[in-house]
Order: sequence, then C-alpha cells, then structure tokens
Amino acid sequence: MAIVTASTFQVPIEICATFAFALSGLIAAARKKMDAFGVFVVTGVAAFGGGTLRDILLDRRPFFWVDHANWIWLMLCMCLLAMVFMRNRHIQITERAIQMPDALGLGLYAALGTQMALALNLPVIVCALMGVMTAVFGGVLRDILCNEIPKAFNDHQPYAVIAFFGSLLVVLFNALSLPQWLCVFIPAGLITLFRIMAIYLAWRLPSWEIESGD
Amino acid sequence: MAIVTASTFQVPIEICATFAFALSGLIAAARKKMDAFGVFVVTGVAAFGGGTLRDILLDRRPFFWVDHANWIWLMLCMCLLAMVFMRNRHIQITERAIQMPDALGLGLYAALGTQMALALNLPVIVCALMGVMTAVFGGVLRDILCNEIPKAFNDHQPYAVIAFFGSLLVVLFNALSLPQWLCVFIPAGLITLFRIMAIYLAWRLPSWEIESGD
Amino acid sequence: MAIVTASTFQVPIEICATFAFALSGLIAAARKKMDAFGVFVVTGVAAFGGGTLRDILLDRRPFFWVDHANWIWLMLCMCLLAMVFMRNRHIQITERAIQMPDALGLGLYAALGTQMALALNLPVIVCALMGVMTAVFGGVLRDILCNEIPKAFNDHQPYAVIAFFGSLLVVLFNALSLPQWLCVFIPAGLITLFRIMAIYLAWRLPSWEIESGD
Repeated sequence: MAIVTASTFQVPIEICATFAFALSGLIAAARKKMDAFGVFVVTGVAAFGGGTLRDILLDRRPFFWVDHANWIWLMLCMCLLAMVFMRNRHIQITERAIQMPDALGLGLYAALGTQMALALNLPVIVCALMGVMTAVFGGVLRDILCNEIPKAFNDHQPYAVIAFFGSLLVVLFNALSLPQWLCVFIPAGLITLFRIMAIYLAWRLPSWEIESGD
Repeated sequence: MAIVTASTFQVPIEICATFAFALSGLIAAARKKMDAFGVFVVTGVAAFGGGTLRDILLDRRPFFWVDHANWIWLMLCMCLLAMVFMRNRHIQITERAIQMPDALGLGLYAALGTQMALALNLPVIVCALMGVMTAVFGGVLRDILCNEIPKAFNDHQPYAVIAFFGSLLVVLFNALSLPQWLCVFIPAGLITLFRIMAIYLAWRLPSWEIESGD
Repeated sequence: MAIVTASTFQVPIEICATFAFALSGLIAAARKKMDAFGVFVVTGVAAFGGGTLRDILLDRRPFFWVDHANWIWLMLCMCLLAMVFMRNRHIQITERAIQMPDALGLGLYAALGTQMALALNLPVIVCALMGVMTAVFGGVLRDILCNEIPKAFNDHQPYAVIAFFGSLLVVLFNALSLPQWLCVFIPAGLITLFRIMAIYLAWRLPSWEIESGD
C-alpha cells in the first residue's frame, strides 16, 4: 500500500493481523471438521476476503494476494501443519491468543481501507464503509462459508461499530489536512484500544426490544 | 439512470420501492435479533444488493449508492430509529404495508435493469436475467446473510417469474421500436399489477412431484 | 476459449461437463423442493458460477454465458422439463450418471482455468487456484444457495485436491514449454483419471484429530 509511507511498525503489524484473521478462519473450519480444501479456503477467505471484496467494489487490481502470492504458500503450509498437530486444547489457546492481533488488524485494516477509498474521492460514508468492510467482511464471508449467521452481525459485541467510528475519524483527520501517517495511525490505534477495552470490560451493544423468530 | 427520461412519477416510485426493499431487510434482521451492524448491513444489502450485483456483472461504475451516498445516511438513521422504537406488532404492520411498494419496486427495477442491459447490446435472455437480478437478488442476498434458503427460491409464489416475463416484454417493446418510456413503464406496470393479483388471488407456482430430502 | 486450439474432443467434452455440473445443481434444488426460479438459479450457478467468479476476480469480460446465451435458453428448458418429469428414482439414476462427466469437467475446467490465468502472467499458486476455482466453485456457490456447508469443503473426498495438483502440473508443463494442447489435455486427463479412481477406490482425505463443535 503505497498510499501511506510504510512506517517501521506497519509491516510487522500487518503480518500479525493477517495471521490472526487467517487463524480465526482455521479455527472455524476445524470446528466444522472440514477437509484440507475447506480449511484452506475458509482460512484464505478470513484473511483476504474483506480486502478482496473492497477491491472488487472499487474495481482495483491486482488484489493483495496476487501481488504477494508467497503469503498463499505460507497459508497453505500453516493449514497443513494445523491439520496434523492441532488438538482441542490448542483451539482454546489460539482463540485467546489471537484477540490482541485481531484487534490490531481491525484498527489497521479499517484505517488503511478508509484511506484507500479517500484517495479515490468517494463520499465520506462510502469511505468509512470501505474501511469497515476491509476489516470485518473477511469474518463475515468466513461465517457464510461455515453456514452460520455472521458473528459480526449478531454477537452484540462492539466490533464493526468501533471500526466505523474510527474510519469516520480517518475522514475527519484528512479533512483537517493532518499528515497522512497521523490520519491512519491515530485512528488505527484508537480502534485497537477501544476494541481491547470492549473485550476486557465486556461492553455490549444495545439489543432489540422484540421477541425473535415471531 | 439517464437512460430513461425520469418521468414525474419515476423518482417518488423509486424512493418508495427502495424504502420497501430496505424495510424487508430490516424486518429480516430484527427477526434474527441482529445487532446494529447486522441490521445495517442486511438492510443495505436488501435495498441495494440486486443493483450492485448487476453492476459488478456488467462492470458498471459507480454504484447507485456511491452516487447517492445520502441514501446511506438516511438508511443508517432508519435502522437506529427502528432498533429503538420497533416492537413485535410493528413488524406485522410493516410487512403488510410494504407489499404494495415492494410490488412497485419489483416492476420498476426489473424494467429499468433490463433497459440498462439492452443499452449494452447484450443477448435477450441476459437482458431479462439482469432485470430479474436487479429486482430480486437484494432479497436473495438478504436471506443468505440471515442463513436461510432464499425465499424467492422456495416459497412457490410467483415473484421472480412475473419479473422475468415483464423483462422479456421490455425486450419485445424495444424490438418494436416503441418510445423508451413506454418500453419501461408498461412492463413495469404490468409486473406490479400481476404481482398484486398473485398476492390477492394467492397464486402458486406448480411444485415438484418428488419427496424432499431423499 | 481461443487460448487452446479447440481440438475435436474439447467441445463435446465441454458440453457434457457443463451439463453434468448443471444437473448437480438441478438435483440439489429438487431435494430442497425449490420452485421454478430457485431451480433455474441454482442450476445456472452450478454450471457457470465457478467460471464467472474466476472472471470477476481476473476482471475478464464477457462471461461465457453472455457469449453463449443459447446455453441459458437450453438450461431453462432443461429445468422446466425436469420439474414436470423428474421423480425420486430419476434423481438416484442421475446422480450416478453424472459422476463420469463431472470428473471430465473437473479435469477440463481446472486445466483450462489454469491456462487462462497463466496467459495473464499471474503467480504459480494464483494460476493453480484459478483452475481449482473454475472447476469447484460452481458447486460451492450451489451449496451456499441451498443453505448447506459446501460439500467440497467437508465430504473428505479428494476432489478439489486432485484438481489442485493437476493445475500445478499445467503450470509445470508450461514452464517446460510443451505444446499448449499437451499442457492442458494431459493434466485434464490425469485429473479425470484420479478422480474416477478416488470414487471407485473410495479414497478419503485425512481428517482432524479434534472433536467437532466444541
């Protein structure tokens, strides 16, 4: 992503975050006892699905995973190793371990996705939605492939909502003509911070006053 | 849509229809007790998903909701208000109330989608399918996000089928070189009329002679 | 597909294979007792969904079914005839009858899809994945529309895995500068052969050592 000058921190954070997203797909596929192909597809979609959907909507090419095809080989190895060595107790450990890098990914991807849409002069709300989509829709597509209602839609945890407000902040900072790296990294950091607070303080989104399924 | 000169009636009908499609998404998300993000996405997909999928297939940009980003803000407000004020009895009232504007939307979107594909010189059947997709696939994607088999696929009511024949009529009228606004508004009116008759006379599509799930 | 000079065998094999993919969609829709519209969409997606998704990702137009719109009319007739004449015992006969043409389609589509991506100078792994996607994702999208976890993801039969190794072989043969028709038809034949062996010898992919759903 040439838009923002890659800081010393961006690349390692990006790797950690993509790795966390991929692991969330791996775990979801393992829980459904999918075979090697299913595990590979669900892992890949969880890692790269959000950015790919954004790029299809914005008509951008090439996709990230076409430009960095080595990551696909890496992911393939990760899936195979996991299928051989992963046991139930590892799943629980992994789920806790990916909470932090997942929060980092939420922040970084939402901010970068928004910045990318701003560079195309799209309306404010569309830029914010592209940011949210980059960060959240990998998980949405993962859950659709697993035949579940997307967790981001009904677990009532503040996840996409935090990414949305952070993305609006990216737009605001750009309107104030702050330097680009500040426009991205302050909102990214705030999203990560609030996401971690949401987990530890068990924040919940308000829910409907209706009975379900009527 | 510059293809057809916007008549006095087109814009208000379009607003009513999109509003009806959006409400169908809102109700579906409410029934699954989704949180704010889920409600917003399902509502947006129900309203704009069909046209967006058509535009991806036809490689057209910008999308309707990028050009009219104000509608997204409006939809966001609608979702938040609904989550605060909507109760079970409102859902039943809403479902009855949206049947008419939904039928209007079915007609108008199918006819406009077909006309748009005709302008690209696509084959007859492809134009008709693009019309049907514009009108029906918002609902299909809405049901996939809610983890249901799409209602349009198995409720055995004439819905997409009516839109399909109406779309073929658009193609026929164009072949007869009728004025463009007649090519769109006569089939749109007929689709709406037949859809309303299908509801009131409880028409059913013929079904399979097989047992299911064998 | 002008990339490979259509041999005497390619066209009839392609017709048989697409027909087999379409029938797999027809059967899936019949089992869910879908109505005419659902049957038509699921059949069409099973037949053309894989190639269409590949073309969206590679930004290629026009789609196969836009260039060959007659096939859509044919498919429409097939669906209507099936809804009138198909009974339970026909479903079982059909399922056995399509195993061979389906294996042919797996081989041919994987090899042709890979060759097509190679012509765009994409990385090896991306080319192989495009081949697999062409051959397998029609079935994946079919199962998502039917609200099932895709069979290709969790039936633990070697299907996509065979297509993947065959696709890598296409890349290897191209690297060795073999004549193009050999690059396509040898891997296509091997994929078909191994797929048939997998069926008759009941090969299984290794599965997880974990308990599901924990």
